[in-house]
This record gives sequence, structure tokens and C-alpha cells, in this order.
Amino acid sequence: MNDVTELAGKVTELSYALDTFYFLVMGALVMWMAAGFTMLEAGLVRAKNTAEILTKNVGLYSIACIMYMLCGYTIMYPGAYEGGMFQSLSTLGTGLLGSTDNSAADVIASGGDTYYSNLSDFFFQVVFVATAMSIVSGAVAERMKLWSFLLFAVVLTGFIYPVQGFWKWGGGFLEVAGFNDFAGSGIVHLCGGAAALAGVILLGARKGKYGPKGEINAIPGCNLPLAALGTMILWLGWFGFNGGSELKVSDVGEANAVALVFVNTNMAAAGGLVFALILARLWFGKGDLTMALNGALAGLVAITAEPLAPTPIGATLIGAAGGLLVVLSIVTLDKLRIDDPVGAISVHGVVGMWGLLAVPIYNDEATLGAQLLGLFSILFWVFTMSFIVWYVIKATLGIRVDEEHEYEGVDLSECGLEAYPEFTSAE
Amino acid sequence: MNDVTELAGKVTELSYALDTFYFLVMGALVMWMAAGFTMLEAGLVRAKNTAEILTKNVGLYSIACIMYMLCGYTIMYPGAYEGGMFQSLSTLGTGLLGSTDNSAADVIASGGDTYYSNLSDFFFQVVFVATAMSIVSGAVAERMKLWSFLLFAVVLTGFIYPVQGFWKWGGGFLEVAGFNDFAGSGIVHLCGGAAALAGVILLGARKGKYGPKGEINAIPGCNLPLAALGTMILWLGWFGFNGGSELKVSDVGEANAVALVFVNTNMAAAGGLVFALILARLWFGKGDLTMALNGALAGLVAITAEPLAPTPIGATLIGAAGGLLVVLSIVTLDKLRIDDPVGAISVHGVVGMWGLLAVPIYNDEATLGAQLLGLFSILFWVFTMSFIVWYVIKATLGIRVDEEHEYEGVDLSECGLEAYPEFTSAE
Amino acid sequence: MNDVTELAGKVTELSYALDTFYFLVMGALVMWMAAGFTMLEAGLVRAKNTAEILTKNVGLYSIACIMYMLCGYTIMYPGAYEGGMFQSLSTLGTGLLGSTDNSAADVIASGGDTYYSNLSDFFFQVVFVATAMSIVSGAVAERMKLWSFLLFAVVLTGFIYPVQGFWKWGGGFLEVAGFNDFAGSGIVHLCGGAAALAGVILLGARKGKYGPKGEINAIPGCNLPLAALGTMILWLGWFGFNGGSELKVSDVGEANAVALVFVNTNMAAAGGLVFALILARLWFGKGDLTMALNGALAGLVAITAEPLAPTPIGATLIGAAGGLLVVLSIVTLDKLRIDDPVGAISVHGVVGMWGLLAVPIYNDEATLGAQLLGLFSILFWVFTMSFIVWYVIKATLGIRVDEEHEYEGVDLSECGLEAYPEFTSAE
Repeated sequence: MNDVTELAGKVTELSYALDTFYFLVMGALVMWMAAGFTMLEAGLVRAKNTAEILTKNVGLYSIACIMYMLCGYTIMYPGAYEGGMFQSLSTLGTGLLGSTDNSAADVIASGGDTYYSNLSDFFFQVVFVATAMSIVSGAVAERMKLWSFLLFAVVLTGFIYPVQGFWKWGGGFLEVAGFNDFAGSGIVHLCGGAAALAGVILLGARKGKYGPKGEINAIPGCNLPLAALGTMILWLGWFGFNGGSELKVSDVGEANAVALVFVNTNMAAAGGLVFALILARLWFGKGDLTMALNGALAGLVAITAEPLAPTPIGATLIGAAGGLLVVLSIVTLDKLRIDDPVGAISVHGVVGMWGLLAVPIYNDEATLGAQLLGLFSILFWVFTMSFIVWYVIKATLGIRVDEEHEYEGVDLSECGLEAYPEFTSAE
Repeated sequence: MNDVTELAGKVTELSYALDTFYFLVMGALVMWMAAGFTMLEAGLVRAKNTAEILTKNVGLYSIACIMYMLCGYTIMYPGAYEGGMFQSLSTLGTGLLGSTDNSAADVIASGGDTYYSNLSDFFFQVVFVATAMSIVSGAVAERMKLWSFLLFAVVLTGFIYPVQGFWKWGGGFLEVAGFNDFAGSGIVHLCGGAAALAGVILLGARKGKYGPKGEINAIPGCNLPLAALGTMILWLGWFGFNGGSELKVSDVGEANAVALVFVNTNMAAAGGLVFALILARLWFGKGDLTMALNGALAGLVAITAEPLAPTPIGATLIGAAGGLLVVLSIVTLDKLRIDDPVGAISVHGVVGMWGLLAVPIYNDEATLGAQLLGLFSILFWVFTMSFIVWYVIKATLGIRVDEEHEYEGVDLSECGLEAYPEFTSAE
Repeated sequence: MNDVTELAGKVTELSYALDTFYFLVMGALVMWMAAGFTMLEAGLVRAKNTAEILTKNVGLYSIACIMYMLCGYTIMYPGAYEGGMFQSLSTLGTGLLGSTDNSAADVIASGGDTYYSNLSDFFFQVVFVATAMSIVSGAVAERMKLWSFLLFAVVLTGFIYPVQGFWKWGGGFLEVAGFNDFAGSGIVHLCGGAAALAGVILLGARKGKYGPKGEINAIPGCNLPLAALGTMILWLGWFGFNGGSELKVSDVGEANAVALVFVNTNMAAAGGLVFALILARLWFGKGDLTMALNGALAGLVAITAEPLAPTPIGATLIGAAGGLLVVLSIVTLDKLRIDDPVGAISVHGVVGMWGLLAVPIYNDEATLGAQLLGLFSILFWVFTMSFIVWYVIKATLGIRVDEEHEYEGVDLSECGLEAYPEFTSAE
């Protein structure tokens, strides 16, 4: 061990191990976001539609993992497995991802340029695609068929998301054009919001949401502690989402960067929550919890495109603007009769755009032009493709449950069970 | 610091620190599984029995920690504290575990062979034993006396579990025989399942579960969002359960191995969920959420015996087989009138066996003979010992609550309070 | 890379990266405690006051982050940003915390004395102040005005907490006097408990809690699974709270210390739970879940002042004493008609004192005199200042809702929505 070259190799290996471990821990936090979306959405729908939203969320996460493994990852990062899906399937017993991870010799020879396990990268990426899809389920809640939704999840996670992900993170034209999106205000959140919007337009509003004379009827969520829990899970998970997107932690500069990302992510959420709560108080007269929760999420979405350049006070303000914007957006979408039970289109779609456009404020390398190019490319691609896919599903399987089933709740018609059989007997 | 020997020592220390930290983080994730079991079981019982299942779960976790500290750890790893329990008690003020951790000089002298803190190992192990015991509480739910259950927990965690744990992980005869069980499909999950089965047989089914003419009555869980949350907590915690069982992360090969374990664990759960959901759809006609959740858990149990050898696609298939098996097993146990309210015997016992038998498919060093030897040794030891202990408790304290108390709910009779006093008033 | 000096620099950087990453992970666990308090308190209040307690908890966390960034951190650690708040505001676009983080050159030149990112320290500290404030919300639940509470949060987190935090952790007179408080039994928990006590005294008991003839009426919490979940979240988060307070993990001695802190934290909680459960059984005749949960939390609070000196058995006993004490304290406070719906004053205030006084038992460097000085300094400062602030708020905005609103629930009057609109219709 006293030989300097050998010792240098050991240090390089140790550095690789730290970065890989960091990546896995951050990925586990992002996986935890799936539980956050599940609880948030379960808290914001009515009791009679709760089991179905739970099933959609755990189902889409699983489907996302499988589809991204089979083809999504190799579409987004060509060459990730040499030969892609088909070779992968043909080498089922001998390797797939496993066989292509880095050898110690290669890592040492790279002098630190190869600094984490390929499989840790796959793990981190696969939980991202699940996040994008989770956004959709809330917006189409309480009236969509379970299996049509899961079929859409197959296409979004296996194809639509990876293509636009490739444009930026895989080295495609948005990367070349100088588009900035650190952890995915656009690629993940706007993507999910755009797919949700297409679905909601084709699906229509829930029965009773909008009256014949222009009334907008509030349909309160049945379990707000779950909504609060979901929000706090997402808040925690976002440290992994943004913190892991630095990709490296193993030297002073990188460690400082990850720490700044943690601080800014936290401050943006705090700013979003406080300003949404105050705006709701001034506008509606009460301290509206659901607006506060959406404000926190809006702060998180807003900072995701650039959590590294702003100061903590700057991050607070970017988040605060997101918090104000989300309240405005939720009210506006309701006026437009776009029925989004959990506010997902506002939180992820509208505020995702704000996040992209806010990048040039603090990051001198970003330009408004490149940000707009990225924004419209993602929006156009995801909305159009999603619209086509939803349309085809609608024309074949159908996407909406029968009116009778919507009235009695989709839990019974789609899942054959009730989420709270003992608590709602008086209904 | 420029002296190479000194620098080499510092690198060895840093490597030790990384492995210890990794072990602690993974252990914290396993501890979190206790919350997962608690929520899962609370979601799947009726409201009137919820406070008692919560009490059992937090109680058993605490008892497991205390008993494993007092005697379990030293039974499973003889020599862990020189002199074992009795010396430990006699040195209460001066050291116990604390005094025996590794010195920097010893670590450096070992050249990296001593690579983590003894106390981090104890922490990781102690949360494992709690996991095994958590499996039992769900199966005996809704009719067992609280204190009889906690007494059983004392014996299982202090004696029954550590003995069979020693056989493999402590260097006993199953280790010598070439039995493979990476993170405990057998030692943890089958162990819990076998102990649960013995209890359920002596306890009998819940009143009303099976009718006199062979009817099987569904008794739905009262709070499915909690069941979904519990499953997702377990999924997250399993990254620690399997990922930490690699025991080391600090070089390229080990880091890659931990990453592969994370990926395979995740894929097996996804595979289990999707295939259980599809089978339930085909068989029962609906997208049954509880089967989907049990499918995910089955996938996790199935991959636990060998998450390092399969490719990610292979892991998906092992998990998928677990997901199919668990649905079959739950239906079959009901036909046999073995009443397991949460499906724990199927998920952990039956699928734990599948996990053990699946090892030779991908791991060339494993043999079916050694796997069968391990499987039957664990099953025989744990079932027999548990049966005896349950039997003695039944003959003395009794294990089952009065029929009247079962009817009104064990929360009032055992805990003196209700879990949801305001939600079930109409009952 | 083969040059020894360069290699030594790289090792120093890697060590800095590991300590920073450890700090961030521990901080994320402490942030997660905010979710724990939220769920615990939501579970222990009545349904009609649930949305407001959720709003208070997410609101106070956000306010704590903002106030601590703006002025709290620089009060507690003078010089943390050169020039403090006012310079910070004037340099909004160029740096604040971000610009002052350590350069690689300075870290290497320090030879390891500078071993983590300043921003990671800020992140860890900011989640601590939120913890202190979270303690207050439970005690004043079910009758306090939302905005008066949030205003108090501004003052506590921006001023009252940081001043006494400076006394010890910022290098003030308690540090000089040899007061020992490893992770804050006094500075965090007693602080929160004292602020809560002042509020409760000025606020008065809930209507119906104490009858005219001295009756004490139990007001059961509406959702005990949430209370159990909250407790287990806190238990998990406490590994970060105590484990991160070691501040360093990157050599053998530090890694062993962090591991011991994890083990002792876990054992103290287990001891507290078991002994509180047994005492409740002996005293009240039943296995009272809420006492068991408070016992676990009491164990955690008790060990927080010194989790490094005791053996694991010693930690279990310190926690057990906390568990017994909390049951006594809850009963006693009720007799004194101090109405604390969740037991926060007992868990954090009373047991926090026990934690401080228990330090000299195992830590030879601690003296009872210094511990008493710290205890009374914190108690006097926080109670007096809080009393003044609550008093001023009471005299201006008012702190208590109208009797009518208290009767119908503060959710409707303060938040304009219900937490469980479908589950309590029979009420």
C-alpha cells in the first residue's frame, strides 16, 4: 500500500465509491417521491376514488421501471447498452446492464473521468421517469379507466419521455442549443404537465364540477393529512431529485455545489409555501392548506431548472413567485373549465415553464432564447404525442368510465374494493 | 501529510468511514421498514383492531432491539462481545459494545480487512431481527392478546431467530454446507412466515371469516392508503435491506455490486406488482389493489436471497414469479382455512421459499441441495420452536381474546382506546 | 496524480466531500422530522382541528427556514456571513451564503481543519430550528389562531432560539461554563417545551377539557395510525438529529462515534417505549398506545444531551427513565390543568431537563452545576421571552379563537376547509 501509484488507484476507487453511493442515496430519495405523489393524490380525491388512484400510482411506477429498462434508457442515452433493447433481450442470462459496468482498471485508467457506476446512473434515471408519469395521474383522477391509464404510462415512459430527455440530457439538439434545465423543470415537470393537459382535454371534467350556469363547484379532497404527508415526502425526495442531479460530490467544489442545491431547494419550497398561503389569505380570506401545499410544490418545481446559480435569498424569491403563480393558475384553469383535481397541471406544467424562464436571471450562461426553444420543444412534442396516444386509446378502449360508475366511484368499478369501507357508510 | 505511509493510513481510515456510514444509512432504511409494516398492517385490519396492531408493531420493534442487544447478537455472532450477555451486564458502566469498537491503529494495521465499525454492524443486524418479528404481527391480527404476542416477541428475537441466523451468517452449518441467502429470504422472511404460521394454527381463524358451509368471507381492510404507504415504505427500506447486505461499498467492484443490488431490488418489486395486478385482473376481473401491493412485496422477498447474480431483466422475472405465486398462495391458504389477515405467510413464507430455490438459476455457486437443506432447516426449527412457545403461552396466559372482545374490537379490550373514535361512530 | 502532495490534497478533498455529504444526509433526516411532528399532531387532535394543525406545521417549517436565513443563523453564529443580515440583503444577486463557501485551496491548506461545506452546516442548523418550533404547535392545538401562531414562529425562530443557541453552540457563556448538550435536549427540546408552556398558560385549556368539579375529560385523538407514523418518522429522523451532531464521520474514531450515537439513540427510544407501555399497563390497566408513543419520544429526547458517552444498555436505561417520567408528567400536568393536547411539554420540556441532568452520569467531563446553569438559563430566557411575545400578540391580535369557532372546529374558521369532509358527516 505504500506505493504511490497503488495508493492513487485506491483513492480513485474510493472517490468512485463515494460518488456511486451518493447517487444511490439520492436515487432512493427520488423513488420515495412516488410515495409522495401517491399520498398527495389520495388525499385530494374523494373517498370513493381513492383505491383506484393508489393502484394507478403504484402501477405506473412499476411500469415506468420496466419500460425504461426495456427501451427508454437506451432511447434517451443511445449506446448505454451496446445494441440496445434487442441485444439486451438476447443476453438475458448473461449481462444486460450488469455486464457493462466499469472495471476498476478502467476507472483508474480514466484518472477519475469515469466516476460512478453505470447502474447507479440507471437507478437515478429510472426513478426520474416515474416522477414524470406520477404527475399525470392526479390530473386525470376520479373519472379515467385504470387500464387505459396504465397503457398510456407504457407509452409515455417507454417512448415520449425518453425522446425529449435525449434532446437535452442525452446530448441532443437542446443540449447543443444551450438550453439549461438542471434537474428537469422542463424535461420532467413540464413533460408531465403537458401529458396531463392532453389527457384532461380529451377526458373532460368530472360530473358536477362545473354547473350549467358557469358555477365552479369545489370538490374537496377526503383526507388532507395524507395530502400534507405527500407534500412533505415530495419535499424530502426533492433533495435527491435536485441534489443528485449535480451527479458528483467527491471534491470540494462539487460538495459545496450539492450543499448549495440542498439549501436552495429547501428555501424555494419555503418561499413558495409562505407566499401561496399569504395570497390565499388575502384573496379567499382563509389560510387555505391546499394552496399552501401546492405553493411548496410550486417552489420546488420552479427552482429545479437552476438550483445552483441563485443565492438562497434568490432561491426563496424564485420559489415565492412559483407559489403566487400556482394560485393564479389553479383559479384560471378552473375558469377555463380544465378540471385538474389536484392542481398538477398548474404546479408542474405552468410553474415548470416559470422555472425554465427564470434560469437566465441568475445563470449568465443561459439565454432566454434557448430557454424558450426548450420550453416550446418539450411542450409541443409531449402535448402532441400524448394527445395522439390518448386519442387512440379513447377511440379503442375508451378512457372514461361510465357515468354510473363515476357516480358510485371508480374504486368499485375498476378495483372491486373500497379504500375506506368503514368510514363512509353514512354516505 | 506528505509521508506516503501516513497518507495510506488516512486513506484506509477514510475507506472505513465510508463503509461505516454506508452501513448506518442502509440500517436506517431497514429501521424505516418497521414503519412500513406498521402502516401496511394498520391499513389491512378493521378499524376496531387498529390501535392494537399499532401497539404490537411499535412494541415488538422495541423488544427486538432490547433482546437482541441483551443476548440475540451474541448468540448469532459468538464472541461479538467477549463473554457475552453476562459480562455485558457486569460492565454496564464501562463499555459493552462501545468499548470493543476498532481502534484506528488496528484498522490501519489490518490493511483494510477491518472495514467498518462493530457498532454499525450491530445497528444493521438489530433492525433485521425486528423485520423478522414484524412479519408475525400481521398474520395473527384482530384476535390475539397483546401481551401474549409481546412475550412471544421476546423469545423469537432473543433466541429463535438468532440461532438460525447463526447457522448461516454466524458461520454455522448452513454456511459450511454452501447455503446461499444474500439478505435473508430464508433467515428473515421465511423465519417470520414460519413463526406466523405456527401462531395462526394455534390461534384459529377470526370469527366470521369462514362460514359453516365452507364460505370464505372477505374482511376488507379499513384504510387502503395506509396499506399503500406501508408498501412503499417497505420498498424504499428494502434498498437498505438488500443494498446494505453487500456490507461494503468502498471500491469499484463493491460500489458496482451495491448499485446492481439497488436496481435488481427495484425491478423485482416492479415485476411482482405488475404480474400480480394482471393475474388478479384476469382471475377476479378487477385491478385488485391489495393483490398488487402483495405482489410488490413478494417481488422484494423473492429477490432477497440473491439480488446480485441476476441481470435486471432476470430480477424482474424472479419478482414476477413471486407476484404470481403470492396471489395463488393467498387464495390457497384461504381454502385451507388458514386465516392470515394481511397475507404475511404467503408473502414472506411461501415466496421466501421461492426466493431460496431461485438462487441456483443465476448463481452458479449455489446448489439446489444446499438451498433445500437451508429451507427445511429454517422452516423446521422456526416452526417447531414457535409452535412450542405459542403452545406454552396458550396453555398459561392464553393467546386469544374473548369472543366478546373480538366482536367489539381488540382496541378497547387490549389498549383501552380507539384508533379512529370519530370516523366509525355510525358502526 | 502520482505526486504525493497532489494526492494528499485529493484525499483531503475527498474527506471534506464525505463529511459534507454525511451532513446533508443527516440534515435531510432532520427535515423529515417536520413530517413526523405534523403526522403526530394531526393524529392526536380531533378531526375538526386537523387541517389547521397541518397548516401550522408546514407554515412554521417554512417560516423557520426563512427567518433563520435572514437573521437567526448570524445571531447564533456571528460572523457566519460577514456583515450579517444587512450585507446579505445588499448582496442578493452575488452571493449571500453561496459566495462564502470554502475553496479547495483553503481546505487543503487547512490540512483537514476545515472539513465540511458552510452551506451544509446552514442546512443542518436550519432544520434544527424548525424542530424546536414544531414542538410548540402541538401544545397549543385546537384553540389558537393560525396567524398569531405563525407570528410567534417568526420571533422564536428568528430571535429567541438563536440567542440561546449562541450561548452554547455559537461559543457563548454556556459553552465557556462547560455546559454539555450534544444535540439539544436543552437548546432544542427544552426550548420548544418552554415556549409551549408560556403559550399554553396564556391561552388556557380547551373548552370541556376540565370540568367545574375537577373532572379531567379525555379528548381522544382522531387518527392514531397517523400518530404512530409520526412517532416512527421522528424516530428515524432522530438518527440524523443525533448522528449528525457529531459533525464529522471521516476517520475511524469519528465513524465509530457516529455508529455509537445511532445505536444509543435507537436503544433509548426502545427503552422509553417499553417502560412507558408497562407503566401504563400497571397504572391504567391497558396497553395505552399514546403513552407508548410518547415513551419512545421521551427516550429520544432524554438521550439527545449525551448519546456518545453511555453504553447501549446505559442508553436504554436513560431512555427508560424518560419513558417513565413522561407518563408521570402527562398525568401531573393534567392535574395542574395545563392542557397540552399532544403531551409536548412533558415529552420535550420535562424530559429535556432529565436529559440534561443525566449527562454527568456517563460523561465525566460534565458537572451537575454546569448542567443546572444551562437548564435554568434556557428555561428562564425562553419562557420569559415567549411569555412576553405571546402576551403582546394576545393583547393585539388575540391568540384564542372565538368560543363558537372552537366548538365547530378551527379548520373552518381559520382554514376554510375540512380535513376529512366525508368521514365525520355523522357528527
